[in-house]
Amino acid sequence: VETTASRPSCVVSLLTDYGLDDGFVGALHSVLRRRVPEVPIVDLTHGVAPQDVRAGSLALRRVAPYLAPGVVVAVVDPGVGTTRRGVAVATADVVFVGPDNGLLVPAVEFLGGASLAVELEDRGYWLETPGPTFAGRDVFAPAAAELASGVSLADLGPAIDPASLARVPDAVTRRRPNGSLETEVTWVDRYGNIHLAAGPHDLSPPPVPGDIFGVSRSSGADGGAGAWTWPARAARTFADLAPGQLGLVVDSYGCLDLCLFGTSAASQLGIQEQDLVVINPA
Amino acid sequence: VETTASRPSCVVSLLTDYGLDDGFVGALHSVLRRRVPEVPIVDLTHGVAPQDVRAGSLALRRVAPYLAPGVVVAVVDPGVGTTRRGVAVATADVVFVGPDNGLLVPAVEFLGGASLAVELEDRGYWLETPGPTFAGRDVFAPAAAELASGVSLADLGPAIDPASLARVPDAVTRRRPNGSLETEVTWVDRYGNIHLAAGPHDLSPPPVPGDIFGVSRSSGADGGAGAWTWPARAARTFADLAPGQLGLVVDSYGCLDLCLFGTSAASQLGIQEQDLVVINPA
Amino acid sequence: VETTASRPSCVVSLLTDYGLDDGFVGALHSVLRRRVPEVPIVDLTHGVAPQDVRAGSLALRRVAPYLAPGVVVAVVDPGVGTTRRGVAVATADVVFVGPDNGLLVPAVEFLGGASLAVELEDRGYWLETPGPTFAGRDVFAPAAAELASGVSLADLGPAIDPASLARVPDAVTRRRPNGSLETEVTWVDRYGNIHLAAGPHDLSPPPVPGDIFGVSRSSGADGGAGAWTWPARAARTFADLAPGQLGLVVDSYGCLDLCLFGTSAASQLGIQEQDLVVINPA
Repeated sequence: VETTASRPSCVVSLLTDYGLDDGFVGALHSVLRRRVPEVPIVDLTHGVAPQDVRAGSLALRRVAPYLAPGVVVAVVDPGVGTTRRGVAVATADVVFVGPDNGLLVPAVEFLGGASLAVELEDRGYWLETPGPTFAGRDVFAPAAAELASGVSLADLGPAIDPASLARVPDAVTRRRPNGSLETEVTWVDRYGNIHLAAGPHDLSPPPVPGDIFGVSRSSGADGGAGAWTWPARAARTFADLAPGQLGLVVDSYGCLDLCLFGTSAASQLGIQEQDLVVINPA
Repeated sequence: VETTASRPSCVVSLLTDYGLDDGFVGALHSVLRRRVPEVPIVDLTHGVAPQDVRAGSLALRRVAPYLAPGVVVAVVDPGVGTTRRGVAVATADVVFVGPDNGLLVPAVEFLGGASLAVELEDRGYWLETPGPTFAGRDVFAPAAAELASGVSLADLGPAIDPASLARVPDAVTRRRPNGSLETEVTWVDRYGNIHLAAGPHDLSPPPVPGDIFGVSRSSGADGGAGAWTWPARAARTFADLAPGQLGLVVDSYGCLDLCLFGTSAASQLGIQEQDLVVINPA
Repeated sequence: VETTASRPSCVVSLLTDYGLDDGFVGALHSVLRRRVPEVPIVDLTHGVAPQDVRAGSLALRRVAPYLAPGVVVAVVDPGVGTTRRGVAVATADVVFVGPDNGLLVPAVEFLGGASLAVELEDRGYWLETPGPTFAGRDVFAPAAAELASGVSLADLGPAIDPASLARVPDAVTRRRPNGSLETEVTWVDRYGNIHLAAGPHDLSPPPVPGDIFGVSRSSGADGGAGAWTWPARAARTFADLAPGQLGLVVDSYGCLDLCLFGTSAASQLGIQEQDLVVINPA
């Protein structure tokens, strides 16, 4: 192992579905630290649902405004071992490294789009492995280490057209003919808050604290409302709600959020990620 | 983003109830590393029970003797968005940053009390947000980054009286008229050990290895013992116990601890944090 | 606390069964950072099953080829407080620090064996504690900090014979008289993949993609096959399998691995770590 000084102010950030129990994350850190021992590393999260590329892409997009300049390694990779490409994609301040399966694109586009993308096909940069490739450990972490030690992106592989990068479906938000808003649950957090794809300006007019809405689960393709409807009160913050009162607030990412003060709205409503909910002015 | 060298030997330590799945912790790290990329960061724990301020305060107090000099950001914050203050509180070696809801005070007092406290009301130091403030990300991490880069505490906001800081109730330990000891379960750890608020010197005389005690759950305000009583044997260490034998040991924090060798005492006894137990000399 | 510069390129890696909720890991990091604030730290994993020394030794062995040069602190320690020794064991690039209970030896041997081993019996290097010793915090982390700050291993304690180090039983792999292979489940990962002790060359001939095998759970000491047999198809990668088809692949550590595409093989087969499975050519 040849150790290299890292570039000043280059941070390597990691987002995966590896969980923390198996040592996969430890292997990534180890590979990075063998090459660039002093590089700052941020674990964005390793708790993406296993092999859920779209949930990973949404999580990466959420943190995109806050990323430290440097390299982001993102791995949610059900297609490892297939012909899906490994790629590195440069934006103004951050180079994203990971599988070409849609995981990276929403964050790349939020940060202004790709200035350069390359395919990580040069096995000279890969780690040797006693079995099939563990892409995070053997391809993506080594590429990030090269970038952190000053190798230029163009040297890591042949340029590819950023427009050719795979995409995941956008989160659903649509106004229905009757004026109601149908929107996707993009995320249920640890506290049971139900984060929606829609922002306040997708409602017309935008909600004002005290407004009452009817919230139901969409019954699916026909866009009909489901069997139940919950009343929700627009509020500025959780703490403005009475106990047991469903709130419709704006979350700290600028999206609509259904919440209950002190308990899990998702559990109470039986709502999961990827469900569609319908919001109607009362 | 203007990057700043961090002060030598300033460590930023984090304790929250964020969990590790949602990316909240990754956002905190990212905000810190954008400003002070090289600062050492310690994750004390992010596994405090959601919104359990008192459990967080006890966890922070436990680790207080071991904290690295620098800044501690602690966030368990059910009152985010209300008028509760955000504060920074200096002790001899550590500045604590977090909500003014009692979370910080036990650790501050253990470390000798506050030499200075300020309110973090200056929005010039806050991060801009697309929605309501996510205090950890937008207020507390930026304040910690300022401190780590050399800004003085007094510059971060107006001084407040440390005596005005909110407090959580102390953990319960009381000698009852009949000579028994009633004490609160402050913590059940991963191994199922039941850590108590009382130390060995709260028993009179202190337990000697081999002593037998009766342990029951308090039936509540009347201080009566509950329906069952378990015999517990005072021991120096888990390994001195027979299989299935409940032990009363001193834990590595100096408190009494009920344990079973190789299994979970909490599960076997049906004991949870905040329960009260009664200990009687046999 | 006297702060010391860390040795360049010395990384401290940690592997424990502490979990992340209790603050045990935060205490280890804090103790390290008080002494060597800038030292790079890698959390290999803290998710080893509580007090499962053998599972910890297998996890440490798996990551051994990737360890960054420096110090590894490994703690799975049901015998804390007994007479089991605390030790530090040097290999070419890594010094392992932990309990002498078998946890360290498989990794040490993989890395070429011990050049020096010492017992950590000098209480002058231990941290003072308000109760019994928490070995990770009070003995092993301080020893690692000393090593990281340049103290030589020989100064930490008296040399002991590396051959005297305790061992855990090797993982089982044996060819049975009828030509079938009996092998132990060493690890079930987050995705439900069943990792086996055997490698492909323990099958004769080694599997070729498309080969069909019968897989059953061993009924135990007599080595008989259990009640059910699953057909498994040798494949190069998960993605070559039909939905619902059990695959026999080589994992990225060079071992055999039973898997189902997109679901948990361990759940479907009812298989756990330490089970024995029998593999028969069809």
